[in-house]
Amino acid sequence: MQSILKINAFDSNHSSVSDASILELIKRRERSFGADAPLFYANPLHVVRGQGVWLYDSDGRPFLDAYNNVPHVGHCNPDVVEAVARQAATLNTHTRYLSEQSYAYAEQLLETFPAPLSKLSLTCTGTESVDLAMRMAYKYTGGTGFIVTRFAYHGNSVAVSSISPSVGLAVPVGRDVRLVAAPDSYRHPQPSIAGRLAEQVSAAIDDLEQHGVKLAAMIIDSIFSSDGVYTDPPGFLQSAAARVRMAGGLVIADEVQPGFGRTGTHMWGFQRHALIPDIVVMGKPMGNGIPIGGVVTTPEILKAFAGSAGYFNTFGGNGVSCAAGHAVLNVLRRDNLLQNATDVGGYLKRQLQAVAGVHECIGDVRGAGLYLSVEFVTQRDTREPDAPKAAAVINALRNRGVLVGGTGAHANMLKIRPPLVFSRENADLLVLALDDILRTGGE
Amino acid sequence: MQSILKINAFDSNHSSVSDASILELIKRRERSFGADAPLFYANPLHVVRGQGVWLYDSDGRPFLDAYNNVPHVGHCNPDVVEAVARQAATLNTHTRYLSEQSYAYAEQLLETFPAPLSKLSLTCTGTESVDLAMRMAYKYTGGTGFIVTRFAYHGNSVAVSSISPSVGLAVPVGRDVRLVAAPDSYRHPQPSIAGRLAEQVSAAIDDLEQHGVKLAAMIIDSIFSSDGVYTDPPGFLQSAAARVRMAGGLVIADEVQPGFGRTGTHMWGFQRHALIPDIVVMGKPMGNGIPIGGVVTTPEILKAFAGSAGYFNTFGGNGVSCAAGHAVLNVLRRDNLLQNATDVGGYLKRQLQAVAGVHECIGDVRGAGLYLSVEFVTQRDTREPDAPKAAAVINALRNRGVLVGGTGAHANMLKIRPPLVFSRENADLLVLALDDILRTGGE
Repeated sequence: MQSILKINAFDSNHSSVSDASILELIKRRERSFGADAPLFYANPLHVVRGQGVWLYDSDGRPFLDAYNNVPHVGHCNPDVVEAVARQAATLNTHTRYLSEQSYAYAEQLLETFPAPLSKLSLTCTGTESVDLAMRMAYKYTGGTGFIVTRFAYHGNSVAVSSISPSVGLAVPVGRDVRLVAAPDSYRHPQPSIAGRLAEQVSAAIDDLEQHGVKLAAMIIDSIFSSDGVYTDPPGFLQSAAARVRMAGGLVIADEVQPGFGRTGTHMWGFQRHALIPDIVVMGKPMGNGIPIGGVVTTPEILKAFAGSAGYFNTFGGNGVSCAAGHAVLNVLRRDNLLQNATDVGGYLKRQLQAVAGVHECIGDVRGAGLYLSVEFVTQRDTREPDAPKAAAVINALRNRGVLVGGTGAHANMLKIRPPLVFSRENADLLVLALDDILRTGGE
Repeated sequence: MQSILKINAFDSNHSSVSDASILELIKRRERSFGADAPLFYANPLHVVRGQGVWLYDSDGRPFLDAYNNVPHVGHCNPDVVEAVARQAATLNTHTRYLSEQSYAYAEQLLETFPAPLSKLSLTCTGTESVDLAMRMAYKYTGGTGFIVTRFAYHGNSVAVSSISPSVGLAVPVGRDVRLVAAPDSYRHPQPSIAGRLAEQVSAAIDDLEQHGVKLAAMIIDSIFSSDGVYTDPPGFLQSAAARVRMAGGLVIADEVQPGFGRTGTHMWGFQRHALIPDIVVMGKPMGNGIPIGGVVTTPEILKAFAGSAGYFNTFGGNGVSCAAGHAVLNVLRRDNLLQNATDVGGYLKRQLQAVAGVHECIGDVRGAGLYLSVEFVTQRDTREPDAPKAAAVINALRNRGVLVGGTGAHANMLKIRPPLVFSRENADLLVLALDDILRTGGE
């Protein structure tokens, strides 16, 4: 098992970088941040400007961004930029003063949630959101047991890294944490997925019980981003969630990846599974890059936690972050970006499946909306993961001006997760580059 | 013991607010964020604009801000606003691409630290910074024991709230955490402070050892902000730190409060004590309100942690936050704001001491630079804390257009902690209002 932090990472011990200005930047980075700070690509990228789905390096060369989900409505989206600039010049303070602005934002955000999910706590990052959700689950249930998938990533705090097995063996999962296999729809028939996951969850519940650990919650990223992108069939989470609730646990939806319309058909990943969780956590795309995260839950769970423990986050709900968040919601709606994710995501998936039709090294193409994965295998019949192939393709795409990432427990998959303003024309560029690389074996 | 989250808080069960628009905002706040989200003042404030040391409510009434340390170089500082707007329109992405901009910022920040503190990790909040420092201390020492002061506040994650006893009994401190009394220079003679603290620390080390807990670190906010603001005599931390190190533990300086020149004479609070810690954590003032935090440590400690566990923070080191942080450093230097904190802070302290000379209810005035505290007592000889008096004065100041906060384990102190651009004229306004309130007993 590889650490998710090392997938697609620059390795200074095996570097063939020769450009003097890039070498100098790498040196400066190491001097201030240390050699272990993660950096992408065998040939690292020095970006200096962004616009929509494009990033530009210091030579002015454009790169098609098919990786970054944080700039959700596009790099330097003008509505977000204007909202941030205006608010920064007007007022930027905390939520211990009354703030009409943050209430208007909260109301618009909460409108997108089904009952009884009606209460919001604002944080600054996905990690802070998951960490807060853990505190709520501990307090509400009185339990400490957590169930997560085997290669899940939920964040980087002491508590959240203990439920993030994908960070690797140097960061052991907590003693009250149980792992379940991800719902691998490539290696198992789709009709069996829901039942298999539910059985795994039942076994985890039993094991916690045998060790005297009371269940607090199951936390699920409904895209299973780090596990390997498993989105189908929709609805497969329901039986597992039901077993968690029967055992007295809460269901936490980690919407850092699927949220804000990423899957196209729904605003939230849990809606795609026709499931209503007890707690929802948000992060990455929420403010288009301005740090903001949030936790949405029921009045009862919030009351049980905040009424005793209390919670205040200095930067949580600050004016600038709320202005960015509000602009994101407005742009998503005005520009029909969920519809775009459905349309372009579906188109891109079909095009990638066509590429897979002529290249044996692609075992599977899957995903939902604008979160897609291409899985490389040494042979289709054995389905043996081919991590070196995935790494070579990721780096070759970068060299041809297309940015994607890698993912999965075996690091053998492309992670394709562009800003939601991605177009069919952008999709064609990506697909042509991929096809050409696989045809020519080219760098 | 009161929870720090409740000091100076609005209480909807004992509200005399009659203004219809304020009542409507309170209702909207409760509907989205719940009734337990902290809100300041018996008569909550609806601020809509900020400039320098001034906040303005929805009626255009100015309030002198002698409380907020996040807008470190002044609300809506034009240099910060411009840097944020320009960067938001240019590029805002993560540190997995090379970024000259973030390296230039890191270099300028690291220049302010003494050797061997030469490595930076960027986060988004003070809580994330303390949480990361805990992970580093666990990894480097192999220990889990933490020593903190009895009414310390370090943040709000699962791990950090376990070393933040001031949050109250609903959030118990961790089983591997030991509490030491704050260095109360009002109730004990100054020459005894260092020795008393060192003895307490030794006892905590012994107790951890007897329970089989290996020491990881002592974490200290050198202003002792929530404990009650204890800054003198400079140097009193040294013996305690030496004992921690002799026992194999690290010394973590929580610079969220004292950092960035707050104490006037030094950039960092630990320098005021002529102490070099092993890990330094930063937050609040770092980006003038744009979420940014950081951890500075030695190459050895960073290597031991990041070389195995790894660390990546999606928003940590993003362009906009770095631009804000860089502008703060530039303004601090260009406008000699440390000198201003020394000058105005010293002036304000003398004026407050003059007020104390004629009002028996003030037991002590103390602090350093622009972090000052006024302690209220029922009688000077008994030094019995007078929390109701402090609350009444805080609310009366707010009604006269001056914003301060409350602090201390007994909630009987004013917390005076303005932006560093505070002037002598601003200080006079504050002192006159305080004197008048104490003379007239007025609301």
